[in-house]
Amino acid sequence: MLDELFSPASIAIIGASRDENKIGNVILGNLVSSGFSGRIYPVNPSYSEIMGLKCYPSVKDIDGPTSIAVIVLPAHIVPQAVEDCIRSGVRFLIIISGGFAETGPEGKMLSDRILSLIRNSGTRLIGPNTVGLYLPYSNINTTLTSYTRVSFPPPGNIGFISQSGALGLLTMDAISEYGIGISAFINLGNRLDVDETEFLDFFESDSRTGSVAIYMESVADGRSFYERIRRFNNKKPLVILKAGRTKQSAMAASLHTGAMASNDSVFNGMLSQAGSVRAYDETELIDYARVLAYSKRMPGNRIAVLTTAGGVGVISTDYISDPEGIKPLQMARLSENTKDQIRKVIVPYGSAENPIDLTADGSVSDYDRVLEILMRDEDVDAVLVYALPQTPKMDMGVVDVVEKHMKVGKPIVVGVLGYKIAKQLLVEFERRKIPAYPSVHRSIKSLGALYEYSAFRSVRQ
Amino acid sequence: MLDELFSPASIAIIGASRDENKIGNVILGNLVSSGFSGRIYPVNPSYSEIMGLKCYPSVKDIDGPTSIAVIVLPAHIVPQAVEDCIRSGVRFLIIISGGFAETGPEGKMLSDRILSLIRNSGTRLIGPNTVGLYLPYSNINTTLTSYTRVSFPPPGNIGFISQSGALGLLTMDAISEYGIGISAFINLGNRLDVDETEFLDFFESDSRTGSVAIYMESVADGRSFYERIRRFNNKKPLVILKAGRTKQSAMAASLHTGAMASNDSVFNGMLSQAGSVRAYDETELIDYARVLAYSKRMPGNRIAVLTTAGGVGVISTDYISDPEGIKPLQMARLSENTKDQIRKVIVPYGSAENPIDLTADGSVSDYDRVLEILMRDEDVDAVLVYALPQTPKMDMGVVDVVEKHMKVGKPIVVGVLGYKIAKQLLVEFERRKIPAYPSVHRSIKSLGALYEYSAFRSVRQ
Repeated sequence: MLDELFSPASIAIIGASRDENKIGNVILGNLVSSGFSGRIYPVNPSYSEIMGLKCYPSVKDIDGPTSIAVIVLPAHIVPQAVEDCIRSGVRFLIIISGGFAETGPEGKMLSDRILSLIRNSGTRLIGPNTVGLYLPYSNINTTLTSYTRVSFPPPGNIGFISQSGALGLLTMDAISEYGIGISAFINLGNRLDVDETEFLDFFESDSRTGSVAIYMESVADGRSFYERIRRFNNKKPLVILKAGRTKQSAMAASLHTGAMASNDSVFNGMLSQAGSVRAYDETELIDYARVLAYSKRMPGNRIAVLTTAGGVGVISTDYISDPEGIKPLQMARLSENTKDQIRKVIVPYGSAENPIDLTADGSVSDYDRVLEILMRDEDVDAVLVYALPQTPKMDMGVVDVVEKHMKVGKPIVVGVLGYKIAKQLLVEFERRKIPAYPSVHRSIKSLGALYEYSAFRSVRQ
Repeated sequence: MLDELFSPASIAIIGASRDENKIGNVILGNLVSSGFSGRIYPVNPSYSEIMGLKCYPSVKDIDGPTSIAVIVLPAHIVPQAVEDCIRSGVRFLIIISGGFAETGPEGKMLSDRILSLIRNSGTRLIGPNTVGLYLPYSNINTTLTSYTRVSFPPPGNIGFISQSGALGLLTMDAISEYGIGISAFINLGNRLDVDETEFLDFFESDSRTGSVAIYMESVADGRSFYERIRRFNNKKPLVILKAGRTKQSAMAASLHTGAMASNDSVFNGMLSQAGSVRAYDETELIDYARVLAYSKRMPGNRIAVLTTAGGVGVISTDYISDPEGIKPLQMARLSENTKDQIRKVIVPYGSAENPIDLTADGSVSDYDRVLEILMRDEDVDAVLVYALPQTPKMDMGVVDVVEKHMKVGKPIVVGVLGYKIAKQLLVEFERRKIPAYPSVHRSIKSLGALYEYSAFRSVRQ
């Protein structure tokens, strides 16, 4: 149903502007900069041309079909534009404008008006009150924030749906730092028509999408949402950041999006029944989506830790073996045979006990040999590998080693601490779709998320 | 007692080398590169000169006093070097070499030998098995990791003591990304002689040090440690990351440093009695040390949140109002008067309820006005300000605004999400010693740490 939205032939910007301080200027500029190869139709009765493109007085004046119309007009004239778009056979409307149900009774009337126009038309609506879409595979950016303010991520494997526009933009900006890619970003806005469930239909069948991350503050219809995400999770992993967990934050959420949040413990139970991993903030959301998109599943929860820094191994063991930890992981008990083999690789003052400490003497080829041994130990379900650049024997070759073992063997999550070389390591791991994290805690929480989803899938099969 | 260690007149490197693969080469190189203005004496009988510096066959051949001798020799010849140093009147030894108590009975004998030499001498010892010191105010770097592998932080206000060398180096590398500075870094190593308590003596009276961060896996003497840190916390805040919390991680810690860890719940109780904030990983350690070094204390735990992105406000409220959250914070209830005043600043669809949402229309001058209002509300103890760069109205001027209010008013912690402009904002906040964090959760946990320490100090006074 939404396929044409993701690969449109043409896009109109209703409310396009020459004034650089207007959103209608930024959106047109983003669309032009993003390299969209289809037709772009600026619409504004005041101009005959904007940014070298022919400008139309009305959407009705465009000759030929329009796949998407992005509407950036004052709220009170949006219904007229919607009507014009429907008459002109526009397939999708993205209403950027705010000033609808989120602002009070008057806005609600405008919303209702638009909804009644849309109903029974062939036109579907995203928004209103949305920052827009970003579709890196189609070179489409209809968002209202300029490239000079935020970075947009490269094409990748995470489908990203956000009820909040700003949170979506800021998260995309943040993940761009490491080259973390997405398959598509959609800001739902007030989701008057199309909601998260229809986007899940699209992502489920989209071969580029390996996992989906959703930020939401409320669910439109709990029952159908539950059914939808349960089916989804049986195909692909879905991470949900549902904010508004406490009474006070639910109140804040209702002020923000105008929708009332549900009871959180009910929601929590629903998520785990449906197999969705829950994230509690913007960092966890993408951290978990990455490990779930890039990794095979974990048969169990027994983790081996491989490090060149003893302290990092100890902190990791703290988190993994903490009985009050959020996720049910445990330290793998290595077999005597495994330990004997590891001892042959490492220096005498290293440790063949889990966490395995190669000390500063651990080289990339030692990592290769120890990973080979761990991949054969049946009591190890996944390996947490630390690529720590402070020793002269660690280099970018560690990425090849991890990739080799991850491809044929068990899941591997990588922790990389530091900055100077660490940053390059993180970017290179990401480029190879190896889940790597810049902190001990984030690495381990992500392993926990992978185990949680794996356990759901193994029970269901 | 340790003052001369922190501003030495001369440093000898015993085991200095011309071979770039040797640690004795890296350390000498680091010391030269760091711009130390005192005398540097390479010691190695094989050379007459290294890096343009006169090389001495033995420490005994150096004419004039030696403040510090850094020893980088195979373990079995270290005792002889120690003896030579003591005879030559060297004040401080930093033994980089490993191969002592951490490796078994033979190493333990070497340790004992060194300890008996040191006792009753005028010479003090740091290490053995340490990566060295980094003293940015004295331009001294005796660490064994090259500047090509890790970054070293600029001069700042956090004293950093680590029992693990690698964890210390990696953490310094990580914080350098944002220009976070330290007053000194010491890796304790096996702490045969000088331990953390003596360094606390130094930091307590060091005017550049605003807070201290310690990574440790074991305490040498529980009772005296408790007394020492309690006194310290009554002067300055001390954050402790004590790893080895569980049975399994305590075992890993004992393999790492050779010292047995104590019962964790006892340790935990001791920390809170003594007023130390506990960190659970490398990120929390420096996050908490920063807010404690830069902020005045919080009279209570009532937080006002100021944002331009509703979703970020909702996630913040989740963490702050979660009754099961780690730190006891709560959302401030704004007075009617405060809300009325805020309503005059913000757009009609913004929120004057806490979290205060200025929406994308919120400008830097709106931030200024709202902060002014919040600083006068007696029911607000601290403000969490989000500087979010996705809107055209947010710019670097927000740093001036926050600085102005923070100087005269209540504590402010800043959250900055994103990357492109966010990174510049984070670096600039740090330069002004305003605690700013690149995530919702880290901002709020840091506020919690500030409250925890403030509560300890207010009870004790």
